[in-house]
Amino acid sequence: MENTTERTELSSLGEFGLIDRLKKFAHLKNTDSLLGIGDDAAVIDCGDHVRLVSTDMMVEGIHFDLSYMPLKHLGYKAVATNVSDIAAMNGKPTQLTVSIAVSSKFSLEAIEELYRGIQAACEVYNVDLVGGDTTSSRSGLMISITIIGTANKQDVVYRSTAKDKDIICVTGDLGGAYMGLQLLEREKQVFLANPNAQPQLEDKDYVVQRQLKPEARMDFIHELKNLEIRPTSMIDISDGLASELMHLCKASGLGARIYEDKLPIDSQTEQIANEFNISTNTCMLNGGEDYELLFTISQDDYAKLRNHPDVTTIGYMHSADKGIHMVSIGQQLVPLTAQGWNHFE
Amino acid sequence: MENTTERTELSSLGEFGLIDRLKKFAHLKNTDSLLGIGDDAAVIDCGDHVRLVSTDMMVEGIHFDLSYMPLKHLGYKAVATNVSDIAAMNGKPTQLTVSIAVSSKFSLEAIEELYRGIQAACEVYNVDLVGGDTTSSRSGLMISITIIGTANKQDVVYRSTAKDKDIICVTGDLGGAYMGLQLLEREKQVFLANPNAQPQLEDKDYVVQRQLKPEARMDFIHELKNLEIRPTSMIDISDGLASELMHLCKASGLGARIYEDKLPIDSQTEQIANEFNISTNTCMLNGGEDYELLFTISQDDYAKLRNHPDVTTIGYMHSADKGIHMVSIGQQLVPLTAQGWNHFE
Repeated sequence: MENTTERTELSSLGEFGLIDRLKKFAHLKNTDSLLGIGDDAAVIDCGDHVRLVSTDMMVEGIHFDLSYMPLKHLGYKAVATNVSDIAAMNGKPTQLTVSIAVSSKFSLEAIEELYRGIQAACEVYNVDLVGGDTTSSRSGLMISITIIGTANKQDVVYRSTAKDKDIICVTGDLGGAYMGLQLLEREKQVFLANPNAQPQLEDKDYVVQRQLKPEARMDFIHELKNLEIRPTSMIDISDGLASELMHLCKASGLGARIYEDKLPIDSQTEQIANEFNISTNTCMLNGGEDYELLFTISQDDYAKLRNHPDVTTIGYMHSADKGIHMVSIGQQLVPLTAQGWNHFE
Repeated sequence: MENTTERTELSSLGEFGLIDRLKKFAHLKNTDSLLGIGDDAAVIDCGDHVRLVSTDMMVEGIHFDLSYMPLKHLGYKAVATNVSDIAAMNGKPTQLTVSIAVSSKFSLEAIEELYRGIQAACEVYNVDLVGGDTTSSRSGLMISITIIGTANKQDVVYRSTAKDKDIICVTGDLGGAYMGLQLLEREKQVFLANPNAQPQLEDKDYVVQRQLKPEARMDFIHELKNLEIRPTSMIDISDGLASELMHLCKASGLGARIYEDKLPIDSQTEQIANEFNISTNTCMLNGGEDYELLFTISQDDYAKLRNHPDVTTIGYMHSADKGIHMVSIGQQLVPLTAQGWNHFE
């Protein structure tokens, strides 16, 4: 396809490796481009405020499986995951565009069902659908959403501004969406083996919901404002805690220490992880798609969040040379590694 | 896939039909959403200026064929076509995001070649690449670009604001990109039949370039400013003159009359159309991808553009009840019909 003699497989790079290689093609020259690639959203100067821009692409068979993901849920989730990127900048979503590529297996009624989910999420998050593109595809469904948000310039929270000794916090609980996925995959295999089998999903509604209908934590962004807390850094947890914490550390030029016994997990997630013989650490550290917020606060703000029912303080930032570790329940110092996701494998 | 009993094939609707059906899911509620679906770009109020947002998706095998489209050209074209949408609003492009889905047949070197084209276009049009997403795909390459532009609020030109008796103008010449495509398709078939055949592209560089490396008419947007002309309405010609003129008429609630003998065609386009036994009208009216600008001006501005070497006045707007027609060279009144593109067929 190309004339060069070299051929580097994308699978050998992974998604983050590829993005690192593509960064060199992006040079910011316009003075209103305050921030480009490297955070949850780009930041554009609009005078008295900034606009935040983020984009996500979801591909059938890679990011979702329509055999257990209803189209309406898919539409909702596609919007929520984009809103989450705006939340992670401490901004408010305002507009989005939705482009879809669809194969002939989809009818108008199916696409309308997808858009009903998109519309439902737009209402919940107060975002306006202002444009998009529609085209056919050779195989399956592809959704590309670009979201635009707004924030006061001084309110924007970056990944790169955590400080030494800051406290690391996380909203909600972790690993649920991952266990929901395992469960749905198992039921799919059971169904494929025996189409008369009934899905075994009783009492598993929480993790299933975490996978099929995740919410962006805009509620918490509004709460931070009420509490008069501006995190020193923030990122949304789409790829698992370990990967996101490493992004924060790398961007801020720091290391971190978190504590295994502090990590928040829901009892249902824990129970199903045990049932599947999957370590709860794997769920929380490397399971993706929780869309909770990982953020750091200065110690001065600790008192304001200490007793918050939906926030867990899990550790602290320190200098880069001390590394990025988890203190295990057995008091072992375990270096964190990002599994993240390699869709190219 | 869905539980409804009805099944409407997307192919029976076409792209515009589908967009019409999806519009009902888009309600603008945020006061800064000045314009949503229905023009070349959405318009977002940013206080002292507006931001323009447009998005396009290109799918391998539908929008491009890598057997004759070099990846670098593809990257350039993907950006230029998006810039063209901002030009059509009388705006200036500022930022863009690029998302790609790629199958394993693409190497890093191939993707870098694509981004070299993207970067080249970003430099030419003074746009900053500020974000994107990368993922794998099951089949081929897909590119989704969202572009952001800026304009003074009073400078934005819509499709919906043409007035009765306004003069219809078009930049450059039409049909070249379409004939370029026919030529490249023919050479591909010749090559497939006989891999030793040499491409017959001598003296055909203009139409090939129109197809492989189209330019957005930002040069003309700057010129309009210098001439102190604000078109009364504008649209870019991506789907052929007839389709775009019908969009302008529908949005403005007017009809139009254009003259066959005025339509601008390059001599090479004409010659190749003759060679292919394709009517030059078909090229100009229904051939796509020229990315020239179709706009209307008030009669007061006519003198300023009358002798412009790169603008052709092709007709005038009139009331809707008089219809949308072309006066043929034989003085016949031919109703215009939009072929446009139906990727779902």
